[in-house]
Amino acid sequence: MIPTGNQQIVLNRRPTGLPVEQDFAVREAPVPVAGPEQVLVRTLMVSIEPAMRGWVLDAPNYLPPVPVGSPMRSFGIGEIVTSDIEDYRPGDLVVGFTGWQEWATLEKTQIQRRIDPDLAPISTALGVLGLTGLTAYVGMLDIGQPQRDSTVVVTSAAGAVGSTAGQLAALRGARVVGVAGSDEKCRQCVDYFGFDAAVNYRAESNLAEAIRRRCPDGVDVLFDSVGGTTLDAILDNINIGARVAICGTMSLPPDGRAVGPRIERRLLVNRVSVQGFLATDHFSRFDRIVGEMAEWLGDGKIRYLEDIAPELADAPSALVRLLESRNTGKSLVRVGLWEEGRNEWWERQ
Amino acid sequence: MIPTGNQQIVLNRRPTGLPVEQDFAVREAPVPVAGPEQVLVRTLMVSIEPAMRGWVLDAPNYLPPVPVGSPMRSFGIGEIVTSDIEDYRPGDLVVGFTGWQEWATLEKTQIQRRIDPDLAPISTALGVLGLTGLTAYVGMLDIGQPQRDSTVVVTSAAGAVGSTAGQLAALRGARVVGVAGSDEKCRQCVDYFGFDAAVNYRAESNLAEAIRRRCPDGVDVLFDSVGGTTLDAILDNINIGARVAICGTMSLPPDGRAVGPRIERRLLVNRVSVQGFLATDHFSRFDRIVGEMAEWLGDGKIRYLEDIAPELADAPSALVRLLESRNTGKSLVRVGLWEEGRNEWWERQ
Repeated sequence: MIPTGNQQIVLNRRPTGLPVEQDFAVREAPVPVAGPEQVLVRTLMVSIEPAMRGWVLDAPNYLPPVPVGSPMRSFGIGEIVTSDIEDYRPGDLVVGFTGWQEWATLEKTQIQRRIDPDLAPISTALGVLGLTGLTAYVGMLDIGQPQRDSTVVVTSAAGAVGSTAGQLAALRGARVVGVAGSDEKCRQCVDYFGFDAAVNYRAESNLAEAIRRRCPDGVDVLFDSVGGTTLDAILDNINIGARVAICGTMSLPPDGRAVGPRIERRLLVNRVSVQGFLATDHFSRFDRIVGEMAEWLGDGKIRYLEDIAPELADAPSALVRLLESRNTGKSLVRVGLWEEGRNEWWERQ
Repeated sequence: MIPTGNQQIVLNRRPTGLPVEQDFAVREAPVPVAGPEQVLVRTLMVSIEPAMRGWVLDAPNYLPPVPVGSPMRSFGIGEIVTSDIEDYRPGDLVVGFTGWQEWATLEKTQIQRRIDPDLAPISTALGVLGLTGLTAYVGMLDIGQPQRDSTVVVTSAAGAVGSTAGQLAALRGARVVGVAGSDEKCRQCVDYFGFDAAVNYRAESNLAEAIRRRCPDGVDVLFDSVGGTTLDAILDNINIGARVAICGTMSLPPDGRAVGPRIERRLLVNRVSVQGFLATDHFSRFDRIVGEMAEWLGDGKIRYLEDIAPELADAPSALVRLLESRNTGKSLVRVGLWEEGRNEWWERQ
């Protein structure tokens, strides 16, 4: 039973700073028809990501700006309804660039991967077993390379990526210190995610000193999603030979004109490497890494939290909440036929 | 015949900015006597390096500040006169921390390596077959990793390290663009060192645009010794996946408080890695790398220039000239028994 309507959330105007709900609008469109070499999917869930802040701006980025009037770009979980792509069949669950809409046609390049619903709740395909997990894995294990007893600092530590990155470091035997924006998030880092310590950056008048107290031996690895003065404060404690993975720059003003202390001399004197990275460059290893992460998940070595909004129209407010750091765990939005309260897709088969 | 006097150039006072000649003083001291586990060397030549600017300051660095009143820290070539270190014998030529003085006692940790005088003129042990060459090799080949047809930019391009680094990139088949401080140096880069192009940064009102003209396909590898606004201008042209080796920060004010555009977002969007490095961390591979470099030197694939001051008392002015970029090639100072005009040590044996 294919409905005739396709609810979409479109970019209504280009935000000047942080997006607000009014930058988006609900639109009804017809259900699209898949062309040659395309699949039609019904969207089950979409992902809300910090990167969206950049995607809606008309500034240099790793993807072109979302056009005004188009459905907001988004990863989502879709169930294939019709397929003209070899290897994809109706009933397959995939992660892809569905956008914020109930129905989407996808070309092969817009499909990220197929989901194995036996592995874990399918929502994890947008989180710890999805791009979130890949991001944490690449940034922490490939770039950060924590060793036993390394001191590792993670910013946005209670967030979906940060909490996973910190747990991966702990799995390697490192001492993990989180930086987060509230006492509650700090407690979550320590009590739920098993970090060794956490710093509420909003409560500290001298963040560098606060980091120093929690990292008396200095910082060997930094997994950073915020940039700016938080990054500066951690670099004040950086050790010789340290590695910094730049995962995001969420604290920077979006106009790209932030200034701050030059870091090249510090990088030289301490032989530090700083590496910006995007998980999307590492899709070729996605299946293998998801396999590893699923095992850790199954063994209870990695935990996750989800913050799920009930319906597509909630997507803009969910994004605003995420960008204001008011979410708890991976931010997701249920769409269309997703059954209320039933994360375990396979239970309703 | 061991003379009784030991001329030294000591740090007379701590410079407030760039060192001037008056920051140093000549002093006569007795020839030291080597203790247990030491060698006595007579110094034949000392090296003048950009890093000395940092060594004389009381600021965080990778080595402690040179104490006021002590001989200036310096690498030099010494001939061993007496030895109480196993494996070192009188007559051996070594590179080590001789300092700016005619005679020095060295412990094993202060000796960098033994020189093979059959390999090349021994002065090269302070240059292209010494730390200069190791620096160029590590920064360009280990970190920069230029590929065939990569676009590589080198700053301080006519300098000892930069000119070697650029030639190593050319050996890998890369397109090499130098940035230097005069038209004459730019000509040297192209005509003598074989770079594909060079930019005189002093002659350009918009350096980013000037780099763009010489690097129409963007910059894949940057070997940078200057930092600051020159680094910014090159980063304006940086390609996705580019690698930046930070070898020095000579353009920055020495107080360590320079500010500038934040680079973390650019590193993220373009997936750039920036790696500070010191060649001294790579001594374990020194002999193997010198062997490789000596072969390229012998085959005429790498060229070098030397700027040799005639006597030890010239060391301060040689340093000032270097820091004002008025030298041509590797800056060296002859000391003591070095025979005038005879670089080829073995010819006088």
